[in-house]
Amino acid sequence: MNSIPFLSDDAIPGGFLFSAARAGLKASGRTDFAGIVADKGTSAAAMFTANRIIAAPLIVDKIHLSRTAGHVRVVAINAGNANCATGEAGLAAARRVCGAVAATFGCHEYEVFPASTGIIGVPLPAEKLIAALPQLQSSLGRSAEHLYQLALAIMTTDTREKVSATTLEIAGKTVRILAVGKGSGMIHPQLVPHATMLVYVLTDAQVEPAALLGFLQSAVNVSFNRISVDGDTSTNDTVLLLASGSSGAGIDSASAPAFQQALTQVCTSLAKQIVADGEGITHVVELEIEGAPSDADAIKVAKAIAHSPLVKTAWAGCDPNWGRLLSATGASGVAIDPAKINLWFGELEICRNGERSPFYDEAKAHEYLKQREYRIRMSLGVGTGSCRFWTTDLTTEYVRINADYST
Amino acid sequence: MNSIPFLSDDAIPGGFLFSAARAGLKASGRTDFAGIVADKGTSAAAMFTANRIIAAPLIVDKIHLSRTAGHVRVVAINAGNANCATGEAGLAAARRVCGAVAATFGCHEYEVFPASTGIIGVPLPAEKLIAALPQLQSSLGRSAEHLYQLALAIMTTDTREKVSATTLEIAGKTVRILAVGKGSGMIHPQLVPHATMLVYVLTDAQVEPAALLGFLQSAVNVSFNRISVDGDTSTNDTVLLLASGSSGAGIDSASAPAFQQALTQVCTSLAKQIVADGEGITHVVELEIEGAPSDADAIKVAKAIAHSPLVKTAWAGCDPNWGRLLSATGASGVAIDPAKINLWFGELEICRNGERSPFYDEAKAHEYLKQREYRIRMSLGVGTGSCRFWTTDLTTEYVRINADYST
Repeated sequence: MNSIPFLSDDAIPGGFLFSAARAGLKASGRTDFAGIVADKGTSAAAMFTANRIIAAPLIVDKIHLSRTAGHVRVVAINAGNANCATGEAGLAAARRVCGAVAATFGCHEYEVFPASTGIIGVPLPAEKLIAALPQLQSSLGRSAEHLYQLALAIMTTDTREKVSATTLEIAGKTVRILAVGKGSGMIHPQLVPHATMLVYVLTDAQVEPAALLGFLQSAVNVSFNRISVDGDTSTNDTVLLLASGSSGAGIDSASAPAFQQALTQVCTSLAKQIVADGEGITHVVELEIEGAPSDADAIKVAKAIAHSPLVKTAWAGCDPNWGRLLSATGASGVAIDPAKINLWFGELEICRNGERSPFYDEAKAHEYLKQREYRIRMSLGVGTGSCRFWTTDLTTEYVRINADYST
Repeated sequence: MNSIPFLSDDAIPGGFLFSAARAGLKASGRTDFAGIVADKGTSAAAMFTANRIIAAPLIVDKIHLSRTAGHVRVVAINAGNANCATGEAGLAAARRVCGAVAATFGCHEYEVFPASTGIIGVPLPAEKLIAALPQLQSSLGRSAEHLYQLALAIMTTDTREKVSATTLEIAGKTVRILAVGKGSGMIHPQLVPHATMLVYVLTDAQVEPAALLGFLQSAVNVSFNRISVDGDTSTNDTVLLLASGSSGAGIDSASAPAFQQALTQVCTSLAKQIVADGEGITHVVELEIEGAPSDADAIKVAKAIAHSPLVKTAWAGCDPNWGRLLSATGASGVAIDPAKINLWFGELEICRNGERSPFYDEAKAHEYLKQREYRIRMSLGVGTGSCRFWTTDLTTEYVRINADYST
């Protein structure tokens, strides 16, 4: 079996079981239905896409989380169909699956948290998922291998599984935090509390749902909400944080900063894995914007750069055409002063005071951009706003993946 | 010679001379410097990019137009270098060229309207342009062939020249309107009065500068401001309207609607030519958005669709993946109601009330999308706002053109 090399069974938070099954939604015949079963009493907090068109399972999730005041027993995730733009029939299908999951795993229907990812606008074949439930139940287990099988089952155009984990000590007890997720295209999550990226963060810390949401928001705002592959915000993006409490360690004001830091680190690692596996990408770019009028403005500039096809294609060609970054910045809507912009590729000064740096060396800049991962820093010189943002290039392979249509 | 087949000398507005020269800015060695010489007393109105980083010639143009209160004698256009992000040296270079142009053609420096298009951030070699001025002067002429040579000289990644023309009768006199322009990539003009698209609209009607700007704004807002190839708003976009008055026909309140209509038609034709020659494109899509909360919201939805890489790549593959259009609409920020969205590809009903239409026929939809030009109509059902917008697909060829970098 292909276990995740760096993850031992010790890294898996207590209180959770994992499984994967074949429901027949993926044309490839691969596993496409996965479950997380949580101990009774597990706290839950979730954030969903800001897209105004949201998939049926997200509508159900919001109702269920509100009904249970933040508790989840079973997460049921299918890949291969987004169950979005499917109308009342889509909602009914999601509810039928929840009912059957509840019957299989012995919980209330509203303790089920359904999730879907795949094509939009195609009716969800609920009966296929329901028929695969015995398989899902019989394959349950708490090992790293079980988690790995879940990570594979939820993939769509992803080329590899995405998992990150850490542990910390709180009051002499070991607390584990682990995130598992998927996402490769339609990646520009804009998560709000109450994105086709699906992320499940699990911990065995003991945290009430309201506090859990606070921790989640702080972590998501500087991780998943700071990445973009193609600027397309999905109808299905979801990040769910579950806290089983099985470590016996509660989080108080003394331990909260350490817990927050560990959670943010796990989320940031997973967010970067999603960008690094973006559809067709050949470069991962860390943007550092500073000196903006505000943090919100810095994010606006980062997104203008990250979403410019001309910038992204230049990156694909390792082309140090920095004028495209300036043009995108000028078109961002942020009140910049062109004569105050400085730009660096790593340590190489590229642009000073809005024009070509006297130290600009095209050959060196080109060489720098040949790396798979690199850093671009822009200083706007007009304020103290800043941000860090992760994005990718735009390649012919991205176009091929998404233009591929054969009838 | 390769004259523009549909354009006779009769279509050329009176009062203008055209020329083209080789200044050595294009690596290809093609003509790259062009001039329009206008009769004394020619009125001018211009609109420029909304990008906050603007090229040096646009700064000079604004000063000159203000100084002359809307009069232009010579338009001097170079391709191959945008003279943007070039600092004080770039401004000085633009001014040196203007001075030499004024001396060559016998006008005031501030009656010169410079323009540049090409790479950003590279110093403009003013001396090359100045050395080519005798060539520019000796090639002047008023024929359709001279105009054609100008249209070729200002091209960058364009694959063909762009010209549109019409005539109308006003008070028994023939008024000619003609537009010539260039643009292929970095095309998402956001023109405001006072975009690497350059457009020159010429007429021999007699109109004062202030009135001319009114006509221009009305025409631009529904033509050049309604197109996008890649969503990148340039630092150099410029539309200049010149009225020589040589027809002897003034525009009064009775003839204004007809003049406006003819002007808008010429601008719309040229705007569509720019889209149809977008970098690497294989499909031109006319979007009709209706039932939006407001016209501004309709434009917001059109742009969200036109700028979604997933929508654009689906179009490249003739893929009727309409869920991507819905997702882009939901992420547009406009207050839509998912259950009220209807969608048609031409006459084919694709989506009704936010879900797959009962008449949806994937094979027919795929067939429809194989056409080079087609129409997509979306009804949002929440208001009376509407717009028409022209855009393109995103192909591997676009990526190749813009990622091509060889050291």
